[in-house]
Amino acid sequence: MNLQKVLLHLEKNFDEDLDRVREFLRMPSISYTGEGIEETAHTLKEIIEELGGTAEVVPTKGHPIVFGEFDEGQEHTLLVYGMYDVMPTDEEGWTVDPWGAEIKDLPKFGPCIVNRGAVNTKGPLGAFFNTLRAIKEVDGKLPVNLIFAVEGEEEMGSRNFPAFLEQYKEKLSKAEAVLFPFFEQDEVGTPGLVLGTKGLLYFELVCQGGDWGGPTSRGIHGSFNAWVKNPAWRLVQALSTMVDVDENILVEGLLDDVSEIAPKEKEILKQQIEEGIYDEKVFLENYDVKRLKYDGTGMDVWEKLYSRPQLNIDGIYSGYTGPGTKTLLPHIATAKVDVRMVPHMEPDEVVRLIRAHLDKHGFADIEMNVANKYYWSKVSVEEDVVQAMIETYRTMGKEPQIQPLNPGSAPYYVFERYLQIPYVTGGMGHGARQHSSDEYCTVEGVLDFEKSMAIFFDHYCQRVSGKQDQQETITR
Amino acid sequence: MNLQKVLLHLEKNFDEDLDRVREFLRMPSISYTGEGIEETAHTLKEIIEELGGTAEVVPTKGHPIVFGEFDEGQEHTLLVYGMYDVMPTDEEGWTVDPWGAEIKDLPKFGPCIVNRGAVNTKGPLGAFFNTLRAIKEVDGKLPVNLIFAVEGEEEMGSRNFPAFLEQYKEKLSKAEAVLFPFFEQDEVGTPGLVLGTKGLLYFELVCQGGDWGGPTSRGIHGSFNAWVKNPAWRLVQALSTMVDVDENILVEGLLDDVSEIAPKEKEILKQQIEEGIYDEKVFLENYDVKRLKYDGTGMDVWEKLYSRPQLNIDGIYSGYTGPGTKTLLPHIATAKVDVRMVPHMEPDEVVRLIRAHLDKHGFADIEMNVANKYYWSKVSVEEDVVQAMIETYRTMGKEPQIQPLNPGSAPYYVFERYLQIPYVTGGMGHGARQHSSDEYCTVEGVLDFEKSMAIFFDHYCQRVSGKQDQQETITR
Repeated sequence: MNLQKVLLHLEKNFDEDLDRVREFLRMPSISYTGEGIEETAHTLKEIIEELGGTAEVVPTKGHPIVFGEFDEGQEHTLLVYGMYDVMPTDEEGWTVDPWGAEIKDLPKFGPCIVNRGAVNTKGPLGAFFNTLRAIKEVDGKLPVNLIFAVEGEEEMGSRNFPAFLEQYKEKLSKAEAVLFPFFEQDEVGTPGLVLGTKGLLYFELVCQGGDWGGPTSRGIHGSFNAWVKNPAWRLVQALSTMVDVDENILVEGLLDDVSEIAPKEKEILKQQIEEGIYDEKVFLENYDVKRLKYDGTGMDVWEKLYSRPQLNIDGIYSGYTGPGTKTLLPHIATAKVDVRMVPHMEPDEVVRLIRAHLDKHGFADIEMNVANKYYWSKVSVEEDVVQAMIETYRTMGKEPQIQPLNPGSAPYYVFERYLQIPYVTGGMGHGARQHSSDEYCTVEGVLDFEKSMAIFFDHYCQRVSGKQDQQETITR
Repeated sequence: MNLQKVLLHLEKNFDEDLDRVREFLRMPSISYTGEGIEETAHTLKEIIEELGGTAEVVPTKGHPIVFGEFDEGQEHTLLVYGMYDVMPTDEEGWTVDPWGAEIKDLPKFGPCIVNRGAVNTKGPLGAFFNTLRAIKEVDGKLPVNLIFAVEGEEEMGSRNFPAFLEQYKEKLSKAEAVLFPFFEQDEVGTPGLVLGTKGLLYFELVCQGGDWGGPTSRGIHGSFNAWVKNPAWRLVQALSTMVDVDENILVEGLLDDVSEIAPKEKEILKQQIEEGIYDEKVFLENYDVKRLKYDGTGMDVWEKLYSRPQLNIDGIYSGYTGPGTKTLLPHIATAKVDVRMVPHMEPDEVVRLIRAHLDKHGFADIEMNVANKYYWSKVSVEEDVVQAMIETYRTMGKEPQIQPLNPGSAPYYVFERYLQIPYVTGGMGHGARQHSSDEYCTVEGVLDFEKSMAIFFDHYCQRVSGKQDQQETITR
């Protein structure tokens, strides 16, 4: 690939390319309401076809998925994951038309496109096609075959995406790795790079009056607690056996499958902490927290964030929760609990262990209703696709913050579990206020992003064609 | 007093007397809205004056209190406590005009007056004046001096009643005992007689993020629990130290001031249990409870109901309590807790002990906000006024269920604490559905009640004029 020419071409044609991104952003595509979904899916198909690829709008039980292919006759193939749906715009605080794609000067960031989806993620998706166009116009073909899988239900939990992966498994299996194009730079310009996400198990513990005592069918007058046990007390007692006062998890076996961070990744984390790329004090300030769960600073605490599971009470409720002083002996008490699982904890095993813990402690009557399961996902920093992204950032003068594991959860495990291939999310560019009013991305970032994608292809192709020479990139 | 003549007079004039009660019930007197409050207070004043007493409508910071006196030149004086206010009628389910005082045949009970306040408590209050009228018409004067204190804010917590007692202390101090006229018969005709009420301490425990950890100002993304402690867990841990799994209270010193039931009252309780006047199986069935807090039957459990304090969770809430699976690390968790105090537990001491317990267990940061305090009240079964009421029921062929202590709470302590005099609530008659639609009282019960009040005066006067002869009534 003639990289320098591609980069020049992107610079020269940026005004026109930016207009294309803005045009794409102006199409509503709200998965929750369905507004513009079909039109946007078909527009994507047309864009891919116009660039010389083939595409189809694949129906699902929900909104369609756009499947596309650029078979360039190359040796290597990447799968581009994307989403064309966005959140609704009914929140207050929009200072411009959420679908106007206006350019607005924002303090600190200069000219920005303000529009729903500017960062999450129709901005990067639209800009990604500009990179492909530039490469095609300069070189005639892409340096790597691409497969597109762009879904329209990401904001609703990607509920039909696994079935699609299953259905298209054979076609998708040509891909060596997954790329999710995104504006990854934060407010100060540092690109983030996550090497996985924690899994999520979400369940309710429900304690209701029954053979053990308690009112069984309705709350009764509070004064009867002199005689009748209280499900809220019972739930409190059951919960209190699960963690100690420092929130150390006491559920037997729950930590057995916890893996440490890989030595290489630990080394990078340590180095980046020393370089000041990580700073827990910024977190404490941003989130109005005075003290972390763990003592210590630097590596002591960051290592724990990325390697420890959590057992969190998302919500708890029972009885009278309004104002004033109603006396009540409730018949039911509920806790919403989540476990964030690190490799190699499996949700079904966690369910089994928590159930066994409750039973062993005499709380067999407490119901455990599992509501949600996301597996963890993990990609090694040593994967070519990850290395190529790191090299891309460095080529553009930025040292990425390499996180061993996103403490949150996302359905990226589908690529590992269905296709057994690594993935990377990345790209230069900055935007923020996703799911909020005045969502934006910087105009400058759009160009940086377009360039970074060309650079990424270049690095990736170099790596996969001559791996051994590049190994030392990992630790600089 | 010529009791037999009075009883005959009541029977003979019942149609007219019943009309008076219905007329009184037809006046709305809703303390929450103020509707009819002033008019009803003045009507009461007129009724008292028409019967030969003196009365005034005493203004308070809220609704007025009717103070009345019948100075009959007698040696002994009783204070009649009453309430002229009722609850609103905006609940669904009324089959008749709530202010129509219609006579309706109810299954099991025959003709009943259906009206707001029929039982709680304008029915008995109105009927009480019929007894006075009959005595006056037969004998010319009452056998005992009466003082009336009828408040208009009982349904709102009697908030201005203590100040009135303070203000009228000198006048009220002539009274030897308090009578609260009420239709005390239950559905099968057994009159209830309570010898006190438990006290109530109601407070909130609030755990918020702070120096100990946790988000301090707002809920944050649930995944940060990997790093940041959770106020809901902390509240659960704090609560779990306060009772054991069987809800035995673990707060040091809390049980120190608990008094046993007096031997005489224990003896009565035991006897009444043996006679089948008490049956815990009826309670279990009525309240849909499968098992009591305590093992055993009969005396084992009834004694505990009346002599044990409780530490109850009325409500608990934190974080996300809606449907579905929102992940959240809340910044605040709240429990609403009540302590029902038996003699001689004092609320201020209980507050001090719970605060000390929390501090000792490392939860000094958890706020304890006291919302409400009712003292316990206790009257001895050996008081003349109580004995007279028991004798009254027996004279009318009913054995009362004598409860050493009402497990609920009511502001009766004011009579003990402000006036240092015993009190009794009582009277024949049956009604129910207070605070609900189709509140009723039986027509037959109104006459029985009117007779029972005359019989009560008779027994009371006999007792106070020749105490020693009557002592053996206690245990039959």
